[in-house]
Amino acid sequence: MKLYNYFRSSASFRVRIALNLKGLPYEYVPIHIARGEHKQAAWSEQLPEGLVPTLELGDGTRLTQSMAIMEYLDETQAGAKLLPTDALGRARVRALSQIVACEIHPINNLRVLKYLVNELKVGEEPKNDWYRHWVRVGLEAFEKQLAAGPSGRFCHGDTPTMADCCLVPQIFNGQRFKADFSGLPRTMAAFEACMALDAFQKAQPSACPDAEA
Amino acid sequence: MKLYNYFRSSASFRVRIALNLKGLPYEYVPIHIARGEHKQAAWSEQLPEGLVPTLELGDGTRLTQSMAIMEYLDETQAGAKLLPTDALGRARVRALSQIVACEIHPINNLRVLKYLVNELKVGEEPKNDWYRHWVRVGLEAFEKQLAAGPSGRFCHGDTPTMADCCLVPQIFNGQRFKADFSGLPRTMAAFEACMALDAFQKAQPSACPDAEA
Repeated sequence: MKLYNYFRSSASFRVRIALNLKGLPYEYVPIHIARGEHKQAAWSEQLPEGLVPTLELGDGTRLTQSMAIMEYLDETQAGAKLLPTDALGRARVRALSQIVACEIHPINNLRVLKYLVNELKVGEEPKNDWYRHWVRVGLEAFEKQLAAGPSGRFCHGDTPTMADCCLVPQIFNGQRFKADFSGLPRTMAAFEACMALDAFQKAQPSACPDAEA
Repeated sequence: MKLYNYFRSSASFRVRIALNLKGLPYEYVPIHIARGEHKQAAWSEQLPEGLVPTLELGDGTRLTQSMAIMEYLDETQAGAKLLPTDALGRARVRALSQIVACEIHPINNLRVLKYLVNELKVGEEPKNDWYRHWVRVGLEAFEKQLAAGPSGRFCHGDTPTMADCCLVPQIFNGQRFKADFSGLPRTMAAFEACMALDAFQKAQPSACPDAEA
């Protein structure tokens, strides 16, 4: 399998963790999003929607959208399970994942921040406040969802799930913008538990072949 | 089952369609999001995260996040299937759903538009341009994803799936802001096919008990 991705992309980071948790080797194909490489003609065949991550299977089939990719890997590949075996557990793990992937990350990704700055002429500080605001609102909902469900070392139980694959990149991203993580004990405990694992460590931006300072 | 929802909420609309497609009766509990009812103490038990839609099951368990709710309904309830039986088909339907639920809707929902206006002092026209921009970018990706896969009357094949449940509310929402739907033949054909069905007609905002002009 080939993963078209970018070291700093949160959504790519989620899939790197999932591949590592399942013990699946993959070819890392770097695309420099910040330089706009994903929109260049050279990549238009591999990335028709101009999105990373894109996962290319052995037969050339290409999958997009990080949560869809993780669910596909979990359904078709051996290795650690990223989703629980019970329907209510799966609903909770998906809801936690979607708090990050639908409530926080989309509002703060690079193209949105660029639109704020370039089109709406929003200054550096208000832009950073915007970023931190959505991280905070989203993680407070995440913490409530964690507190309402069964306890465990990770987001759902004692093994990492798709929810942890989504949470960790969001925390990394938030740290770059100095988001406020106070008063989120269960969320941050899950983050720490994840970071003690090789699968998460090896997927982090600074460990990627295309990492920059 | 009880569905806490708001007639104009896109994410609520998705779940209403899914419930109708599966033929599941439910109690409609209206929450007036535009008036901020979801944040009021009176609803803090039912809506701890302050989000609609929330689906309450017979035993009081509450589920959040529209895609997680739809997958739960599909896994546990009889009726029409909202996801295909093959893993690649499921990956495609989830990716299409996520183009709407992760790439378009979050950037344009009410709280984000309010932040633009109230905090960043963005004017009415630039706000509407913002809205239309993200709908257009997202639907172009949606159209490419449709064109790259198997054809059919709906987004994936000849029966509606979760992808159609996500697409239709986004088109309704975009119509309110006069978004540009030109040059999206497969997307709009799927929308038309959906709107010929009772399940979609009966879920639309104007058909809700809390509908306003």
